[in-house]
Amino acid sequence: MVLAQDLLRANSHLASGNREILDRHGVRALNIIGSPGAGKTALLERTVEALKGRVRLGVIEGDISTTRDAERIAKTGAQVVQVNTGGNCHLNAGMVGQALEKLPLEKIDLLVIENVGNLVCPAAFDLGEDLKAVVLSVAEGDDKPEKYPATFLACGAAVITKTDLLGHTDFDLKRCVEEIRAVNGNIIIFSTSSRTGEGFDEWCAWLEDFALKGRMGRGE
Amino acid sequence: MVLAQDLLRANSHLASGNREILDRHGVRALNIIGSPGAGKTALLERTVEALKGRVRLGVIEGDISTTRDAERIAKTGAQVVQVNTGGNCHLNAGMVGQALEKLPLEKIDLLVIENVGNLVCPAAFDLGEDLKAVVLSVAEGDDKPEKYPATFLACGAAVITKTDLLGHTDFDLKRCVEEIRAVNGNIIIFSTSSRTGEGFDEWCAWLEDFALKGRMGRGE
Repeated sequence: MVLAQDLLRANSHLASGNREILDRHGVRALNIIGSPGAGKTALLERTVEALKGRVRLGVIEGDISTTRDAERIAKTGAQVVQVNTGGNCHLNAGMVGQALEKLPLEKIDLLVIENVGNLVCPAAFDLGEDLKAVVLSVAEGDDKPEKYPATFLACGAAVITKTDLLGHTDFDLKRCVEEIRAVNGNIIIFSTSSRTGEGFDEWCAWLEDFALKGRMGRGE
Repeated sequence: MVLAQDLLRANSHLASGNREILDRHGVRALNIIGSPGAGKTALLERTVEALKGRVRLGVIEGDISTTRDAERIAKTGAQVVQVNTGGNCHLNAGMVGQALEKLPLEKIDLLVIENVGNLVCPAAFDLGEDLKAVVLSVAEGDDKPEKYPATFLACGAAVITKTDLLGHTDFDLKRCVEEIRAVNGNIIIFSTSSRTGEGFDEWCAWLEDFALKGRMGRGE
Protein backbone atom coordinates (compact mmCIF):
# COMPACT_ATOMS: atom_id res chain seq x y z
CA MET A 1 0.00 0.00 0.00
CA VAL A 2 1.36 3.38 -0.98
CA LEU A 3 0.55 5.57 1.95
CA ALA A 4 1.88 9.07 2.27
CA GLN A 5 2.03 9.91 5.96
CA ASP A 6 0.69 13.41 5.23
CA LEU A 7 -2.33 11.92 3.56
CA LEU A 8 -3.04 9.61 6.50
CA ARG A 9 -2.69 12.54 8.88
CA ALA A 10 -5.12 14.64 6.85
CA ASN A 11 -7.52 11.70 6.78
CA SER A 12 -7.34 11.31 10.57
CA HIS A 13 -8.19 14.96 11.01
CA LEU A 14 -11.27 14.65 8.79
CA ALA A 15 -12.25 11.40 10.54
CA SER A 16 -12.22 13.21 13.89
CA GLY A 17 -14.59 15.77 12.41
CA ASN A 18 -16.94 13.01 11.23
CA ARG A 19 -16.81 11.40 14.68
CA GLU A 20 -17.81 14.68 16.32
CA ILE A 21 -20.78 15.08 13.98
CA LEU A 22 -21.90 11.49 14.58
CA ASP A 23 -21.48 11.82 18.35
CA ARG A 24 -23.50 15.03 18.41
CA HIS A 25 -26.40 13.21 16.74
CA GLY A 26 -26.06 10.08 18.86
CA VAL A 27 -25.33 8.03 15.74
CA ARG A 28 -23.16 4.92 16.04
CA ALA A 29 -21.13 3.98 12.97
CA LEU A 30 -19.83 0.67 11.66
CA ASN A 31 -17.29 0.51 8.80
CA ILE A 32 -17.72 -2.75 6.86
CA ILE A 33 -14.69 -4.11 5.01
CA GLY A 34 -14.39 -7.17 2.78
CA SER A 35 -13.36 -8.52 -0.62
CA PRO A 36 -15.43 -7.89 -3.75
CA GLY A 37 -18.27 -10.39 -3.65
CA ALA A 38 -17.88 -11.23 0.05
CA GLY A 39 -21.60 -10.55 0.43
CA LYS A 40 -21.44 -7.19 2.18
CA THR A 41 -24.49 -5.71 0.43
CA ALA A 42 -26.56 -8.89 0.79
CA LEU A 43 -25.72 -8.97 4.50
CA LEU A 44 -26.82 -5.36 4.77
CA GLU A 45 -30.08 -5.89 2.85
CA ARG A 46 -31.18 -8.66 5.19
CA THR A 47 -29.89 -6.75 8.23
CA VAL A 48 -32.00 -3.69 7.38
CA GLU A 49 -35.09 -5.87 7.09
CA ALA A 50 -34.35 -7.68 10.36
CA LEU A 51 -33.76 -4.45 12.29
CA LYS A 52 -36.91 -2.66 11.08
CA GLY A 53 -38.75 -1.14 14.05
CA ARG A 54 -35.75 -1.81 16.29
CA VAL A 55 -32.93 0.36 14.91
CA ARG A 56 -33.12 3.30 12.49
CA LEU A 57 -30.44 2.57 9.92
CA GLY A 58 -28.53 4.82 7.57
CA VAL A 59 -26.16 3.46 4.95
CA ILE A 60 -23.24 4.87 2.99
CA GLU A 61 -22.36 2.69 0.00
CA GLY A 62 -18.78 2.94 -1.19
CA ASP A 63 -17.93 1.71 -4.69
CA ILE A 64 -15.42 2.59 -7.34
CA SER A 65 -18.18 2.73 -9.93
CA THR A 66 -21.97 2.27 -10.38
CA THR A 67 -24.87 3.02 -7.99
CA ARG A 68 -26.03 -0.60 -7.89
CA ASP A 69 -25.47 -1.19 -4.20
CA ALA A 70 -27.27 1.99 -3.15
CA GLU A 71 -30.22 1.01 -5.37
CA ARG A 72 -30.37 -2.38 -3.67
CA ILE A 73 -30.32 -0.80 -0.21
CA ALA A 74 -32.84 1.92 -1.17
CA LYS A 75 -35.37 -0.84 -1.91
CA THR A 76 -35.27 -1.85 1.76
CA GLY A 77 -36.42 1.63 2.74
CA ALA A 78 -33.21 2.59 4.56
CA GLN A 79 -31.64 6.02 4.14
CA VAL A 80 -28.74 5.53 1.76
CA VAL A 81 -26.09 7.61 0.00
CA GLN A 82 -23.82 6.20 -2.72
CA VAL A 83 -20.22 7.37 -2.86
CA ASN A 84 -18.26 6.58 -6.03
CA THR A 85 -14.53 6.80 -5.46
CA GLY A 86 -13.75 6.96 -9.18
CA GLY A 87 -10.86 4.51 -9.00
CA ASN A 88 -9.83 4.88 -5.37
CA CYS A 89 -9.58 1.47 -3.70
CA HIS A 90 -11.06 2.58 -0.36
CA LEU A 91 -13.29 5.25 1.16
CA ASN A 92 -11.60 8.10 2.98
CA ALA A 93 -12.90 10.39 5.71
CA GLY A 94 -13.43 13.28 3.31
CA MET A 95 -15.79 11.24 1.14
CA VAL A 96 -17.71 10.08 4.21
CA GLY A 97 -17.91 13.66 5.52
CA GLN A 98 -19.59 14.76 2.30
CA ALA A 99 -21.99 11.83 2.45
CA LEU A 100 -22.93 12.68 6.06
CA GLU A 101 -24.25 16.05 4.84
CA LYS A 102 -26.80 14.22 2.70
CA LEU A 103 -28.14 11.99 5.49
CA PRO A 104 -30.87 12.95 8.03
CA LEU A 105 -28.65 12.10 11.01
CA GLU A 106 -31.33 13.07 13.54
CA LYS A 107 -33.38 10.13 12.24
CA ILE A 108 -30.57 7.59 12.33
CA ASP A 109 -29.36 5.38 15.19
CA LEU A 110 -26.84 3.27 13.31
CA LEU A 111 -24.83 4.27 10.27
CA VAL A 112 -23.35 1.39 8.31
CA ILE A 113 -20.60 2.36 5.90
CA GLU A 114 -19.98 -0.31 3.26
CA ASN A 115 -16.44 0.24 2.06
CA VAL A 116 -15.09 -0.50 -1.43
CA GLY A 117 -14.62 -4.24 -2.02
CA ASN A 118 -11.04 -4.75 -0.90
CA LEU A 119 -9.66 -6.80 1.97
CA VAL A 120 -6.46 -4.75 2.27
CA CYS A 121 -6.47 -0.98 1.81
CA PRO A 122 -9.66 0.16 3.61
CA ALA A 123 -8.33 -1.01 6.99
CA ALA A 124 -5.75 1.79 7.06
CA PHE A 125 -8.26 4.63 6.73
CA ASP A 126 -10.25 5.86 9.71
CA LEU A 127 -13.62 7.18 8.52
CA GLY A 128 -14.84 8.34 11.94
CA GLU A 129 -16.58 5.04 12.69
CA ASP A 130 -16.91 3.48 16.14
CA LEU A 131 -15.92 0.04 14.92
CA LYS A 132 -14.71 -1.77 11.84
CA ALA A 133 -16.20 -5.14 10.87
CA VAL A 134 -14.66 -7.54 8.37
CA VAL A 135 -16.86 -9.69 6.13
CA LEU A 136 -15.40 -12.96 4.79
CA SER A 137 -17.38 -15.41 2.70
CA VAL A 138 -17.22 -19.19 2.89
CA ALA A 139 -16.45 -19.15 -0.86
CA GLU A 140 -13.23 -17.20 -0.24
CA GLY A 141 -11.61 -19.93 1.84
CA ASP A 142 -10.74 -20.48 5.49
CA ASP A 143 -7.08 -19.50 5.01
CA LYS A 144 -7.64 -15.77 4.50
CA PRO A 145 -7.25 -14.32 8.04
CA GLU A 146 -3.52 -15.05 8.26
CA LYS A 147 -3.01 -14.02 4.64
CA TYR A 148 -4.65 -10.62 5.25
CA PRO A 149 -3.84 -10.06 8.93
CA ALA A 150 -3.91 -6.24 9.05
CA THR A 151 -7.62 -6.06 8.28
CA PHE A 152 -8.58 -8.75 10.80
CA LEU A 153 -6.43 -6.98 13.38
CA ALA A 154 -8.09 -3.61 12.73
CA CYS A 155 -11.62 -4.98 13.14
CA GLY A 156 -13.73 -5.50 16.26
CA ALA A 157 -16.17 -7.87 14.57
CA ALA A 158 -15.90 -10.52 11.86
CA VAL A 159 -18.89 -11.80 9.91
CA ILE A 160 -18.46 -15.06 8.03
CA THR A 161 -21.04 -15.04 5.22
CA LYS A 162 -22.54 -17.56 2.75
CA THR A 163 -22.65 -20.45 5.24
CA ASP A 164 -25.22 -22.01 2.87
CA LEU A 165 -22.20 -22.84 0.65
CA LEU A 166 -20.40 -24.77 3.41
CA GLY A 167 -21.26 -28.18 1.97
CA HIS A 168 -20.19 -27.14 -1.53
CA THR A 169 -16.67 -25.93 -0.69
CA ASP A 170 -13.62 -27.08 1.31
CA PHE A 171 -14.18 -24.30 3.85
CA ASP A 172 -13.56 -25.45 7.43
CA LEU A 173 -15.53 -23.14 9.74
CA LYS A 174 -13.66 -24.23 12.86
CA ARG A 175 -10.29 -23.64 11.22
CA CYS A 176 -11.39 -20.20 10.00
CA VAL A 177 -12.57 -19.14 13.46
CA GLU A 178 -9.25 -20.33 14.91
CA GLU A 179 -7.32 -18.36 12.28
CA ILE A 180 -9.29 -15.20 12.99
CA ARG A 181 -8.67 -15.59 16.73
CA ALA A 182 -4.97 -16.27 16.12
CA VAL A 183 -4.70 -12.89 14.39
CA ASN A 184 -7.03 -11.01 16.76
CA GLY A 185 -8.02 -12.50 20.11
CA ASN A 186 -10.49 -9.70 20.88
CA ILE A 187 -12.75 -9.97 17.86
CA ILE A 188 -16.38 -11.08 18.01
CA ILE A 189 -17.25 -13.59 15.27
CA PHE A 190 -20.60 -14.28 13.58
CA SER A 191 -21.49 -16.96 11.01
CA THR A 192 -24.31 -16.00 8.67
CA SER A 193 -26.15 -16.83 5.48
CA SER A 194 -27.98 -13.95 3.83
CA ARG A 195 -29.86 -16.54 1.76
CA THR A 196 -31.26 -18.66 4.60
CA GLY A 197 -31.07 -16.14 7.45
CA GLU A 198 -28.85 -18.42 9.52
CA GLY A 199 -27.00 -16.49 12.22
CA PHE A 200 -28.96 -13.26 11.79
CA ASP A 201 -30.54 -13.43 15.25
CA GLU A 202 -27.13 -13.22 16.94
CA TRP A 203 -25.71 -10.70 14.48
CA CYS A 204 -28.72 -8.37 14.67
CA ALA A 205 -29.00 -8.62 18.47
CA TRP A 206 -25.37 -7.58 18.69
CA LEU A 207 -25.93 -4.72 16.20
CA GLU A 208 -28.96 -3.50 18.16
CA ASP A 209 -26.89 -3.44 21.32
CA PHE A 210 -24.09 -1.68 19.44
CA ALA A 211 -26.53 0.96 18.14
CA LEU A 212 -28.06 1.46 21.59
CA LYS A 213 -24.74 2.65 23.00
CA GLY A 214 -25.13 5.75 20.82
CA ARG A 215 -28.52 6.66 22.20
CA MET A 216 -27.31 6.18 25.77
CA GLY A 217 -24.26 8.34 25.21
CA ARG A 218 -20.77 6.96 24.81
CA GLY A 219 -20.28 5.25 28.14
CA GLU A 220 -18.12 2.43 26.83
CA MET B 1 -5.61 4.39 -4.68
CA VAL B 2 -2.80 6.58 -3.46
CA LEU B 3 -0.42 6.68 -6.38
CA ALA B 4 2.53 9.01 -6.50
CA GLN B 5 3.42 9.59 -10.13
CA ASP B 6 7.11 9.28 -9.26
CA LEU B 7 6.50 5.87 -7.82
CA LEU B 8 4.63 4.70 -10.90
CA ARG B 9 7.42 6.02 -13.10
CA ALA B 10 10.07 4.18 -11.08
CA ASN B 11 7.94 1.03 -11.27
CA SER B 12 7.67 1.32 -15.07
CA HIS B 13 11.42 1.59 -15.33
CA LEU B 14 11.93 -1.58 -13.27
CA ALA B 15 9.19 -3.35 -15.25
CA SER B 16 11.05 -2.61 -18.49
CA GLY B 17 14.11 -4.23 -16.96
CA ASN B 18 12.11 -7.33 -16.04
CA ARG B 19 10.68 -7.47 -19.57
CA GLU B 20 14.18 -7.39 -21.06
CA ILE B 21 15.34 -10.26 -18.84
CA LEU B 22 12.26 -12.33 -19.67
CA ASP B 23 12.62 -11.62 -23.40
CA ARG B 24 16.27 -12.61 -23.35
CA HIS B 25 15.30 -16.00 -21.92
CA GLY B 26 12.30 -16.45 -24.19
CA VAL B 27 10.00 -16.53 -21.18
CA ARG B 28 6.40 -15.35 -21.56
CA ALA B 29 4.78 -13.87 -18.47
CA LEU B 30 1.19 -13.64 -17.28
CA ASN B 31 0.17 -11.44 -14.33
CA ILE B 32 -2.89 -12.89 -12.61
CA ILE B 33 -5.15 -10.49 -10.71
CA GLY B 34 -8.25 -11.22 -8.64
CA SER B 35 -9.98 -10.82 -5.28
CA PRO B 36 -8.91 -12.79 -2.22
CA GLY B 37 -10.46 -16.21 -2.58
CA ALA B 38 -11.23 -15.88 -6.29
CA GLY B 39 -9.48 -19.21 -6.78
CA LYS B 40 -6.24 -18.00 -8.36
CA THR B 41 -4.01 -20.58 -6.64
CA ALA B 42 -6.42 -23.46 -7.26
CA LEU B 43 -6.60 -22.47 -10.95
CA LEU B 44 -2.83 -22.46 -11.05
CA GLU B 45 -2.46 -25.84 -9.30
CA ARG B 46 -4.68 -27.56 -11.84
CA THR B 47 -3.11 -25.61 -14.72
CA VAL B 48 0.39 -26.77 -13.78
CA GLU B 49 -0.81 -30.38 -13.74
CA ALA B 50 -2.59 -30.01 -17.07
CA LEU B 51 0.40 -28.40 -18.79
CA LYS B 52 2.97 -30.96 -17.61
CA GLY B 53 5.08 -32.10 -20.55
CA ARG B 54 3.65 -29.30 -22.71
CA VAL B 55 4.85 -26.07 -21.09
CA ARG B 56 7.61 -25.54 -18.51
CA LEU B 57 6.03 -23.33 -15.88
CA GLY B 58 7.52 -20.99 -13.34
CA VAL B 59 5.42 -19.26 -10.70
CA ILE B 60 5.83 -16.18 -8.54
CA GLU B 61 3.37 -16.14 -5.65
CA GLY B 62 2.52 -12.70 -4.28
CA ASP B 63 0.95 -12.45 -0.84
CA ILE B 64 0.95 -9.95 1.96
CA SER B 65 1.77 -12.68 4.44
CA THR B 66 2.42 -16.47 4.71
CA THR B 67 4.09 -18.89 2.24
CA ARG B 68 0.98 -21.04 1.88
CA ASP B 69 0.40 -20.47 -1.81
CA ALA B 70 4.01 -21.21 -2.75
CA GLU B 71 3.83 -24.42 -0.71
CA ARG B 72 0.72 -25.47 -2.61
CA ILE B 73 2.36 -24.77 -5.97
CA ALA B 74 5.64 -26.45 -4.96
CA LYS B 75 3.71 -29.69 -4.47
CA THR B 76 2.86 -29.70 -8.20
CA GLY B 77 6.58 -29.70 -9.01
CA ALA B 78 6.62 -26.28 -10.66
CA GLN B 79 9.43 -23.82 -9.98
CA VAL B 80 8.01 -21.31 -7.50
CA VAL B 81 9.15 -18.28 -5.52
CA GLN B 82 7.04 -16.68 -2.79
CA VAL B 83 7.09 -12.90 -2.44
CA ASN B 84 5.64 -11.44 0.76
CA THR B 85 4.78 -7.78 0.36
CA GLY B 86 4.57 -7.18 4.12
CA GLY B 87 1.40 -5.11 3.90
CA ASN B 88 1.61 -3.83 0.35
CA CYS B 89 -1.66 -4.49 -1.50
CA HIS B 90 -0.03 -5.41 -4.81
CA LEU B 91 3.23 -6.67 -6.27
CA ASN B 92 5.53 -4.13 -7.87
CA ALA B 93 8.20 -4.55 -10.51
CA GLY B 94 11.02 -4.35 -7.97
CA MET B 95 9.66 -7.32 -6.03
CA VAL B 96 9.25 -9.32 -9.23
CA GLY B 97 12.78 -8.40 -10.36
CA GLN B 98 14.19 -9.87 -7.14
CA ALA B 99 12.09 -13.00 -7.56
CA LEU B 100 13.33 -13.45 -11.15
CA GLU B 101 16.88 -13.79 -9.81
CA LYS B 102 15.78 -16.88 -7.87
CA LEU B 103 14.16 -18.66 -10.84
CA PRO B 104 15.98 -20.84 -13.43
CA LEU B 105 14.65 -18.81 -16.36
CA GLU B 106 16.47 -20.93 -18.93
CA LYS B 107 14.21 -23.83 -17.89
CA ILE B 108 10.96 -21.87 -18.00
CA ASP B 109 8.61 -21.19 -20.93
CA LEU B 110 5.80 -19.50 -19.09
CA LEU B 111 6.02 -17.46 -15.90
CA VAL B 112 2.77 -16.99 -14.05
CA ILE B 113 2.78 -14.22 -11.48
CA GLU B 114 -0.05 -14.55 -8.98
CA ASN B 115 -0.61 -11.07 -7.60
CA VAL B 116 -1.86 -10.19 -4.10
CA GLY B 117 -5.59 -10.85 -3.70
CA ASN B 118 -7.05 -7.51 -4.70
CA LEU B 119 -9.31 -6.63 -7.62
CA VAL B 120 -8.28 -2.97 -7.66
CA CYS B 121 -4.70 -1.91 -6.99
CA PRO B 122 -2.59 -4.52 -8.87
CA ALA B 123 -3.96 -3.39 -12.25
CA ALA B 124 -2.04 -0.11 -12.04
CA PHE B 125 1.40 -1.71 -11.67
CA ASP B 126 3.28 -3.10 -14.66
CA LEU B 127 5.46 -6.01 -13.53
CA GLY B 128 7.07 -6.63 -16.93
CA GLU B 129 4.46 -9.21 -17.95
CA ASP B 130 3.21 -9.78 -21.50
CA LEU B 131 -0.41 -9.91 -20.43
CA LYS B 132 -2.63 -9.44 -17.40
CA ALA B 133 -5.45 -11.90 -16.67
CA VAL B 134 -8.29 -11.26 -14.25
CA VAL B 135 -9.81 -14.11 -12.23
CA LEU B 136 -13.41 -13.75 -11.02
CA SER B 137 -15.26 -16.46 -9.14
CA VAL B 138 -18.91 -17.38 -9.54
CA ALA B 139 -19.24 -16.85 -5.79
CA GLU B 140 -18.31 -13.16 -6.16
CA GLY B 141 -21.31 -12.30 -8.32
CA ASP B 142 -21.92 -11.41 -11.95
CA ASP B 143 -22.07 -7.67 -11.26
CA LYS B 144 -18.37 -7.16 -10.56
CA PRO B 145 -16.94 -6.16 -13.98
CA GLU B 146 -18.73 -2.80 -14.09
CA LYS B 147 -18.04 -2.20 -10.41
CA TYR B 148 -14.29 -2.75 -10.89
CA PRO B 149 -13.83 -1.61 -14.50
CA ALA B 150 -10.16 -0.57 -14.41
CA THR B 151 -8.94 -4.11 -13.79
CA PHE B 152 -11.12 -5.66 -16.49
CA LEU B 153 -9.94 -2.95 -18.88
CA ALA B 154 -6.28 -3.60 -18.11
CA CYS B 155 -6.53 -7.35 -18.74
CA GLY B 156 -6.30 -9.34 -21.97
CA ALA B 157 -7.91 -12.45 -20.52
CA ALA B 158 -10.64 -13.12 -17.95
CA VAL B 159 -11.07 -16.45 -16.21
CA ILE B 160 -14.39 -17.09 -14.50
CA THR B 161 -13.74 -19.70 -11.80
CA LYS B 162 -15.80 -22.00 -9.55
CA THR B 163 -18.43 -22.81 -12.19
CA ASP B 164 -19.27 -25.85 -10.01
CA LEU B 165 -21.03 -23.34 -7.73
CA LEU B 166 -23.29 -22.01 -10.52
CA GLY B 167 -26.36 -23.88 -9.30
CA HIS B 168 -25.83 -22.77 -5.71
CA THR B 169 -25.66 -19.02 -6.34
CA ASP B 170 -27.55 -16.32 -8.27
CA PHE B 171 -24.63 -15.91 -10.67
CA ASP B 172 -25.76 -15.46 -14.28
CA LEU B 173 -22.89 -16.54 -16.53
CA LYS B 174 -24.35 -14.88 -19.63
CA ARG B 175 -24.83 -11.59 -17.82
CA CYS B 176 -21.27 -11.71 -16.46
CA VAL B 177 -19.77 -12.33 -19.90
CA GLU B 178 -21.83 -9.42 -21.28
CA GLU B 179 -20.61 -7.17 -18.46
CA ILE B 180 -16.99 -8.09 -19.08
CA ARG B 181 -17.38 -7.39 -22.80
CA ALA B 182 -19.14 -4.09 -22.08
CA VAL B 183 -16.05 -2.95 -20.15
CA ASN B 184 -13.49 -4.50 -22.52
CA GLY B 185 -14.48 -5.69 -25.97
CA ASN B 186 -11.04 -7.21 -26.69
CA ILE B 187 -10.79 -9.61 -23.78
CA ILE B 188 -10.79 -13.40 -24.14
CA ILE B 189 -13.03 -15.11 -21.58
CA PHE B 190 -12.79 -18.60 -20.07
CA SER B 191 -15.19 -20.38 -17.69
CA THR B 192 -13.55 -22.93 -15.44
CA SER B 193 -13.95 -25.10 -12.37
CA SER B 194 -10.73 -26.11 -10.65
CA ARG B 195 -12.73 -28.77 -8.80
CA THR B 196 -14.23 -30.55 -11.82
CA GLY B 197 -11.77 -29.49 -14.50
CA GLU B 198 -14.50 -27.90 -16.60
CA GLY B 199 -13.10 -25.42 -19.11
CA PHE B 200 -9.44 -26.40 -18.58
CA ASP B 201 -9.01 -27.76 -22.11
CA GLU B 202 -9.73 -24.35 -23.63
CA TRP B 203 -7.83 -22.40 -20.98
CA CYS B 204 -4.72 -24.60 -21.18
CA ALA B 205 -4.73 -24.72 -24.99
CA TRP B 206 -4.79 -20.93 -25.00
CA LEU B 207 -1.99 -20.79 -22.39
CA GLU B 208 0.13 -23.22 -24.39
CA ASP B 209 -0.27 -21.04 -27.45
CA PHE B 210 0.52 -17.96 -25.38
CA ALA B 211 3.70 -19.61 -24.03
CA LEU B 212 4.75 -20.73 -27.50
CA LYS B 213 4.97 -17.14 -28.68
CA GLY B 214 7.95 -16.72 -26.36
CA ARG B 215 9.89 -19.61 -27.85
CA MET B 216 9.19 -18.37 -31.37
CA GLY B 217 10.31 -14.85 -30.57
CA ARG B 218 7.94 -11.94 -30.09
CA GLY B 219 6.22 -11.77 -33.43
CA GLU B 220 2.85 -10.60 -32.15
